[in-house]
Amino acid sequence: MRRFTHDTLGQRVILASGGAAAHLTAEVARLGGERVMVVADGPGADLAAQALGGQVALRWTEVLQHVPVELAERAREAASRGGVDVIVSVGGGSTTGLAKAVALTSGVPIVAVPTTYAGSEATDVWGLTEASTKTTGSDPAVLPVTVIYDAELTTSLPVALSVASGLNALAHCVDSLWAPRADPINLALALEGARALSEGLPQVVSAPADLEGREVCLYGAYLAAVAFASAGSGMHHKICHVLGGSFGLPHAETHAIVLPHVLAHNAPAVPELTRRLAEALGNPDASDPARAAVTALQALRRRLDAPEALRDHGLAEADIPEAAARCLAAVPDSNPVPLTRRSMTGLLRAAWAGDPPAPSPAHPSPTQRRD
Amino acid sequence: MRRFTHDTLGQRVILASGGAAAHLTAEVARLGGERVMVVADGPGADLAAQALGGQVALRWTEVLQHVPVELAERAREAASRGGVDVIVSVGGGSTTGLAKAVALTSGVPIVAVPTTYAGSEATDVWGLTEASTKTTGSDPAVLPVTVIYDAELTTSLPVALSVASGLNALAHCVDSLWAPRADPINLALALEGARALSEGLPQVVSAPADLEGREVCLYGAYLAAVAFASAGSGMHHKICHVLGGSFGLPHAETHAIVLPHVLAHNAPAVPELTRRLAEALGNPDASDPARAAVTALQALRRRLDAPEALRDHGLAEADIPEAAARCLAAVPDSNPVPLTRRSMTGLLRAAWAGDPPAPSPAHPSPTQRRD
Repeated sequence: MRRFTHDTLGQRVILASGGAAAHLTAEVARLGGERVMVVADGPGADLAAQALGGQVALRWTEVLQHVPVELAERAREAASRGGVDVIVSVGGGSTTGLAKAVALTSGVPIVAVPTTYAGSEATDVWGLTEASTKTTGSDPAVLPVTVIYDAELTTSLPVALSVASGLNALAHCVDSLWAPRADPINLALALEGARALSEGLPQVVSAPADLEGREVCLYGAYLAAVAFASAGSGMHHKICHVLGGSFGLPHAETHAIVLPHVLAHNAPAVPELTRRLAEALGNPDASDPARAAVTALQALRRRLDAPEALRDHGLAEADIPEAAARCLAAVPDSNPVPLTRRSMTGLLRAAWAGDPPAPSPAHPSPTQRRD
Repeated sequence: MRRFTHDTLGQRVILASGGAAAHLTAEVARLGGERVMVVADGPGADLAAQALGGQVALRWTEVLQHVPVELAERAREAASRGGVDVIVSVGGGSTTGLAKAVALTSGVPIVAVPTTYAGSEATDVWGLTEASTKTTGSDPAVLPVTVIYDAELTTSLPVALSVASGLNALAHCVDSLWAPRADPINLALALEGARALSEGLPQVVSAPADLEGREVCLYGAYLAAVAFASAGSGMHHKICHVLGGSFGLPHAETHAIVLPHVLAHNAPAVPELTRRLAEALGNPDASDPARAAVTALQALRRRLDAPEALRDHGLAEADIPEAAARCLAAVPDSNPVPLTRRSMTGLLRAAWAGDPPAPSPAHPSPTQRRD
């Protein structure tokens, strides 16, 4: 047992397929809301209108990725003019993000109804973008008081987007194993999230209109976000942040491609964590946990027809050395297998080419070392 | 995936053997505490004095089981006279309980330093006793803001008491599987708690002075309490409440004896939950999960030299029919295997005699039914 400090964020989470409207009515009433701001850029606005009727004081439908400051300020002014006392967001990460921007300065509580697996609803982290620079911070005021998951609202999410969003959520789980504030509680939540996502995502692919797989994915994505918010960004998220921010690579595809390479790199040094991850992914082979975990992840990615190579998604071969240097500087010192320029370059080259992930050279698998 | 509403309570938890004093200083400073009330009936008072020095405005050492109202009122008056702004409790469940009684009426935040596996520190539940009637309720004001676990403070807890307290914590985990508000999040936390307790308790017995087992037990007991607080009281706790309240049986021994009988009764009807419990207890036999779970629990109880029979702890054979009637009325309707007068009497008779636990007659194990 390592020493740890774990902050649990207080929040109500409701999972009820088909029940979002009724729960929304009840939660707004519980919060004493009489003048509600609805933030929703899709059909969610209708759901909220149906649930809240005359309590809707303001409907805000303009939502943009990364929450530009200018947009946030207009939304804040409208909320202030409207005298709103509860914010209801219905949508993906950008929608939740705009609601958070309003809550940050106004202190008005949020009820979030997420329609993707982004996970922002489970964290107290906000983000704003000004002149293409993103500023983030954490504040208790932006943590939604209640989250309502309703799988019926996600059936219109296309399968490819569901898979990308779901693998992004799975990356939250995997990176939580060795992130800077990793602790046993994060681990337990991350493993349960990974178990759910690896069960639910194939169901979404095989039966996109069914609610069951989408419910399990919402549940898994929630735990993934809770674990990630507590554990912080590990090697995987630092690499993806560099590739997205400095080289313009697309968010979800980058996560989906990089994850097995990071797992293969770190797994041999943390065999007990990896054994539990492999078990959560449905491949409990204790004799070689690193191989078991990577194999399970690759099998899942194949079932989901996940993207394979960064070169198909905008990374130029010539950029690999510069990307490796920037990634190297970003990876936390606490990473279980230290990286060198050489090993980082090798990892990025494999991810670029779509080569199979290889264990870190310093830790040929299997290892008998205990973590 | 069932529908559920899960309330997560926001709290900081710190695990740091040998570090309680330093963390106490830091947490009181974070809360802006300048006039601290220390509630501690043992050596904990010295720890707090050392950590907080001149910030201690009031030392309260009188602590009684079940928090008599008269005691709570004297402590509240002293806190009010002393103008205290933070309450620090160091001790077991009764100590935390008295601190909660003060917080309930004053709103003063609590920093809890638990020295047993009682788990009260992880819940927003308070209890007060007047004229031998216990009143309980829940209030956000009584949830400790921070919990600090330090295994060094538990090494003086005798082995027998550690085992009893630990099995009580394990009962929180097991009963969470089928309690009225059981949900997948409670389940994940309960299973992680069970895993930790079944690993840590034998270490406490075999090496009582070592910190490692005691650390793992504190961690497991914390998760057990988080899960239990969220899931509510199931069949096991309702039975133990009747046996303790109406027949005067001792708390910890009653829990230790009754638990395998409740598990054997319910397990066959919830094979998937039971399979995961058996796995957490170190006996992953998927072919007969009910037998695997009961066998694992019994093996653990033998290693811990746990008590076997209620007749050795104050239950008279003649009281079994009356006890069965009262228990029957108390068990939640949601219990996976409904109880009859006959099956409840059989269960209590087996627990009274120290007979091996038997699966519920309606569900001979193994079953292929999926839950």
